[in-house]
Amino acid sequence: MKKTNQKIPVGILGATGSVGQKFIQLLEDHPYFEVREVAASERSAGKTYADAVHWFLPGKIPEKIRRLKVKPCDPSLKCRLVFSGLDASVAGEVEENLARAGYIVVSNSKNHRFDPYVPLLIPEVNADHLELLNKQEYTAGKIVTNPNCSTIGLVMAIKPLLDNFGLNQLNVVTLQAISGAGFPGVAGLSILENAIPHIAGEEQKLETEPLKILGQVGEKGIDLLHLPISAQCNRIPVIDGHLLSVQVSLKRKAKREEVIASWQQFRGEPQRLKLPSAPGLPIHYFEEADYPQPRLHRNLENGMAVSIGRLRECPLFDYKFSVLTHNTVRGAAGGAILCAELMKAKGILSAIF
Amino acid sequence: MKKTNQKIPVGILGATGSVGQKFIQLLEDHPYFEVREVAASERSAGKTYADAVHWFLPGKIPEKIRRLKVKPCDPSLKCRLVFSGLDASVAGEVEENLARAGYIVVSNSKNHRFDPYVPLLIPEVNADHLELLNKQEYTAGKIVTNPNCSTIGLVMAIKPLLDNFGLNQLNVVTLQAISGAGFPGVAGLSILENAIPHIAGEEQKLETEPLKILGQVGEKGIDLLHLPISAQCNRIPVIDGHLLSVQVSLKRKAKREEVIASWQQFRGEPQRLKLPSAPGLPIHYFEEADYPQPRLHRNLENGMAVSIGRLRECPLFDYKFSVLTHNTVRGAAGGAILCAELMKAKGILSAIF
Amino acid sequence: MKKTNQKIPVGILGATGSVGQKFIQLLEDHPYFEVREVAASERSAGKTYADAVHWFLPGKIPEKIRRLKVKPCDPSLKCRLVFSGLDASVAGEVEENLARAGYIVVSNSKNHRFDPYVPLLIPEVNADHLELLNKQEYTAGKIVTNPNCSTIGLVMAIKPLLDNFGLNQLNVVTLQAISGAGFPGVAGLSILENAIPHIAGEEQKLETEPLKILGQVGEKGIDLLHLPISAQCNRIPVIDGHLLSVQVSLKRKAKREEVIASWQQFRGEPQRLKLPSAPGLPIHYFEEADYPQPRLHRNLENGMAVSIGRLRECPLFDYKFSVLTHNTVRGAAGGAILCAELMKAKGILSAIF
Amino acid sequence: MKKTNQKIPVGILGATGSVGQKFIQLLEDHPYFEVREVAASERSAGKTYADAVHWFLPGKIPEKIRRLKVKPCDPSLKCRLVFSGLDASVAGEVEENLARAGYIVVSNSKNHRFDPYVPLLIPEVNADHLELLNKQEYTAGKIVTNPNCSTIGLVMAIKPLLDNFGLNQLNVVTLQAISGAGFPGVAGLSILENAIPHIAGEEQKLETEPLKILGQVGEKGIDLLHLPISAQCNRIPVIDGHLLSVQVSLKRKAKREEVIASWQQFRGEPQRLKLPSAPGLPIHYFEEADYPQPRLHRNLENGMAVSIGRLRECPLFDYKFSVLTHNTVRGAAGGAILCAELMKAKGILSAIF
Repeated sequence: MKKTNQKIPVGILGATGSVGQKFIQLLEDHPYFEVREVAASERSAGKTYADAVHWFLPGKIPEKIRRLKVKPCDPSLKCRLVFSGLDASVAGEVEENLARAGYIVVSNSKNHRFDPYVPLLIPEVNADHLELLNKQEYTAGKIVTNPNCSTIGLVMAIKPLLDNFGLNQLNVVTLQAISGAGFPGVAGLSILENAIPHIAGEEQKLETEPLKILGQVGEKGIDLLHLPISAQCNRIPVIDGHLLSVQVSLKRKAKREEVIASWQQFRGEPQRLKLPSAPGLPIHYFEEADYPQPRLHRNLENGMAVSIGRLRECPLFDYKFSVLTHNTVRGAAGGAILCAELMKAKGILSAIF
Repeated sequence: MKKTNQKIPVGILGATGSVGQKFIQLLEDHPYFEVREVAASERSAGKTYADAVHWFLPGKIPEKIRRLKVKPCDPSLKCRLVFSGLDASVAGEVEENLARAGYIVVSNSKNHRFDPYVPLLIPEVNADHLELLNKQEYTAGKIVTNPNCSTIGLVMAIKPLLDNFGLNQLNVVTLQAISGAGFPGVAGLSILENAIPHIAGEEQKLETEPLKILGQVGEKGIDLLHLPISAQCNRIPVIDGHLLSVQVSLKRKAKREEVIASWQQFRGEPQRLKLPSAPGLPIHYFEEADYPQPRLHRNLENGMAVSIGRLRECPLFDYKFSVLTHNTVRGAAGGAILCAELMKAKGILSAIF
Repeated sequence: MKKTNQKIPVGILGATGSVGQKFIQLLEDHPYFEVREVAASERSAGKTYADAVHWFLPGKIPEKIRRLKVKPCDPSLKCRLVFSGLDASVAGEVEENLARAGYIVVSNSKNHRFDPYVPLLIPEVNADHLELLNKQEYTAGKIVTNPNCSTIGLVMAIKPLLDNFGLNQLNVVTLQAISGAGFPGVAGLSILENAIPHIAGEEQKLETEPLKILGQVGEKGIDLLHLPISAQCNRIPVIDGHLLSVQVSLKRKAKREEVIASWQQFRGEPQRLKLPSAPGLPIHYFEEADYPQPRLHRNLENGMAVSIGRLRECPLFDYKFSVLTHNTVRGAAGGAILCAELMKAKGILSAIF
Repeated sequence: MKKTNQKIPVGILGATGSVGQKFIQLLEDHPYFEVREVAASERSAGKTYADAVHWFLPGKIPEKIRRLKVKPCDPSLKCRLVFSGLDASVAGEVEENLARAGYIVVSNSKNHRFDPYVPLLIPEVNADHLELLNKQEYTAGKIVTNPNCSTIGLVMAIKPLLDNFGLNQLNVVTLQAISGAGFPGVAGLSILENAIPHIAGEEQKLETEPLKILGQVGEKGIDLLHLPISAQCNRIPVIDGHLLSVQVSLKRKAKREEVIASWQQFRGEPQRLKLPSAPGLPIHYFEEADYPQPRLHRNLENGMAVSIGRLRECPLFDYKFSVLTHNTVRGAAGGAILCAELMKAKGILSAIF
């Protein structure tokens, strides 16, 4: 960044999709970043963004973005940092091409999450995994990934438990919002006054991604955490906000108050660095018997906080509790933006700007 | 019953409430029973049923019932068999008074479920518990209870596993419909586009009722099954149909096909006796990846069947799967009616008719 | 029909779509008709029905239909009567080809509704329009059409008013269920906790179709009724059941009781002929202040009745009231089946069977 | 107000109710007003606000308010300006008592809306009606009322039409959100996957309130506008945002572009005075075919703007179009706050502060 008053130009890959729209909405008036490029499939390329998009978020398309020409997702984009909301069917190759061409790619797609030297990053949890970037094969470019939307809330909730008490087992059943499936995603006829006990690929992500995120940087990438996890995923008629019923077995027995204190005292690099999108308090614990709830608490701290409630002893594990995260903010676009803010604060973006 | 072509007159306690309405709807044209008395709180007593009730079920109030006078819930009711959909705040005393006065009470309320000699009955599961009635303190009258709406589906699903493979542990997370809370029950403002991770008293019922239902008749009532159970209960915006994410550890390891076969081959007394409300197949197993679903499968076999799907191995337990039951039919009024049908078939009603 | 105990074999065009599924569900155990052929696009042709369909209706696919091979929509179908739930993009040509090839096509698609000699039929309203068939250009084959799903309820509600009092003006605002848009149709993200004030093409249908249905058979087809109609259409988060807010100006002033009596006394050919799908009472008038409601009343008379309520004087027109119809039963597949039943009763099918 | 840096202390009547909660939420960090008193029924009086309220709005109770002691709604409140969200069953007398005791009452309740010298105020529409206050019978105190939640959007939409083209007739059908009924209000079992064609008293408000709001200040209060209005009201499963299907007959024929321009150019006193809660643009017209929609547009301009779309010619009236307003912000608490801001700007509050 040549001048401090100049924002870093960024591009959005998959800009017309659901995650892409959320990137655009959250980056309006961002203090570090300014969306200058919107890229999408060839079908959209050449149109103005307003013509190409079926905007389905509350509120209007930001004025500056409406008239941007949609470009293809290739190295013609005039920026060095791109946020990717691409569909997994195309993200793998596109993101790799851009990284090879010198772009820094912060991706919400699953394709590169398990590449050995690609951080699977939750800034509050494993900021140190950015070290991996030094070993990435791309010369100037880099790929950083954001975990799956339901993984993020789960991992933020158990990180303080892991640090303070150790974890033996983790069980989770999800009640997930439909925005996680993109647009059009789940048909109204499928989900209205209904629930669906299946989300393709989701359980596998919840059972594996935490092991990398909570692992240690080793010689050949991340040494995975050893932690047996079982996940069952359900879709429910909620727009935004994934609610999880969680159970944990701890290595060291802990009192209820200790567990709650571990959440309330939890802070990470984003809080220490006062990053613009960082929630002041990453975890909010509620004593109310019926909290947290998606519609009431998903927008806490602009959708970047995790809400927890109902901590109680469990006849099978040590504790059970409920966790809520805004799946398209903290769990997708907002989480990815926080990754980029962390990278800027750590000087990782300075090489290219 | 003096003549075979004469139906047994029955009364409904709490007839204007949500369970009461369902009793009335399900008993329209019942081959054994005919609703002759509707009883409710003093506020309603004296009015016609049509005037007293805020009918909220699909369809119309049965014509014969509209003009019945609502009576108080006391021994003036001209029938010997009553179905109780009373609120727990009053059910305890009312039901006891009626039993003392010689009525047979089949109750959906929780108050007497753990009385030592009161059967907590699921006809397919523990028909033999009717033996307890011999030891009940009431002279002519009797009390039989129906389990909690989410317990019923759970216990029907695990009964074949218990019988065939034995059970070590049981974990369940529920996604429950709002009709379980009665009317007006859950406010629209609370549940629309939302989920609530709490249902008062529900987890405790799920963790204890199965132990009695699956227990053995002993000297002093039921010897409880030993089975550690953990339950977490959530309310979701569905009208009818409780969906459960279940995990089990078996005593004897079983193959996936064996587990499914145990469900498909499961039959109970209602099937052997061909009771009018009995589902032909008590458990339907679905191979489709995203079944069962509340809106699609709750009405299978007139709402009396349990639907199961997604059986798969579990990293923490042996198996995990999803279970669905219609909470106000099989899980409440329909289940209670099946109990009464079983009692009739077993000659238990003959003493009084 | 050669023998009385033999059912007429029928085929379903567009059998895997939403209307097609409803045809199959409603024709299970039909006394006149038996589904022997299921036809769909080339993509599905050759598969079994169970493999080709994404079944989204409550309940299971009828056993006999599961294993039927899906065929293309052409004259190779081994039946002479077909029900069409084809998409309008293909229905026009396909239906015409089949009619030319000697099939009787009862169609739910819009394409031929305004062909001069094609009846736009509501059996209770304009059974006499079947006369038009004599002038149809096809030799053995015929095309009969079913009106749009929201038109049917509206026209049934105003037909008694037109007959008894005459109509000067008609105003209607709709609150329509999402099943009217087929599957996947309206995205969950679009409609959950929302309403959409637009349904493509719907207002134009509501403003024109009644004029043909209520017109008179003339020399060159139907002489349209003269009646200015204005329609505004909204989509709401309801699965089934279109609710209409209607206003009418009458030619002859009528008392409230006369209007209600005209609805209650209304009967048509299906009632006189006791057709199997005919509702005993085509119109149910409710005095309750907040009836009719989609979830409570859409299934009255197996979804074939129209429900009306809230008749009251209007400051601008003479009367206003609310009308409810099940849009996929009476308003689509059920309505079309009733048309075929009428044709059978009138001997129109005898030529070919 | 003695010092410019001091905020005006205000009280909330009915502070624990749904409108009361919204007042508290919207007044957090308000530049003019600071909530110092929360008043409610005797049942709540004496408790802290956090203990007395069942908070059901998204987000948390503002910290400063949590610990306020709830007081009775009487002249012991230490403030001179009160916002009333009281239920109509008690508002009449309470508000009158407070006005007599010298309080300025800005009320969202219906009780005093038609008192001759009480303004029924929409600041953009009839700011001049504040003149009426000079004739109010109370010495120091005053009562100002906010119209019904669905009236406000309707009147803002037709005011530019009235001013520019004159109005002969107005027809409206509403699709109203459930938050308009307060908490608990509409039962989940009543409204989920349903619509209800009736809202008690609502149609009468829509047919009469606009006549006063759009009337002229005369000798004995407001000379009502002459305008025949017909309203039909429906409740739908939406949390916030009333959607209206409107039809108008104009006195002077106008082109479509003229009508749209009249909306886009509409400004009122709040815009001229740059009141803190005033929307920059009071009316947003959308050209998109399916806008406005409750979930997408209710929060435009912090919920204070009215959204209009789908203007098209009407076969019965001149034009038809759709209008959307946030019913608890612009249509209730936010609208009342804007009234108070207008009063401050006009010097009406200076007498008492």
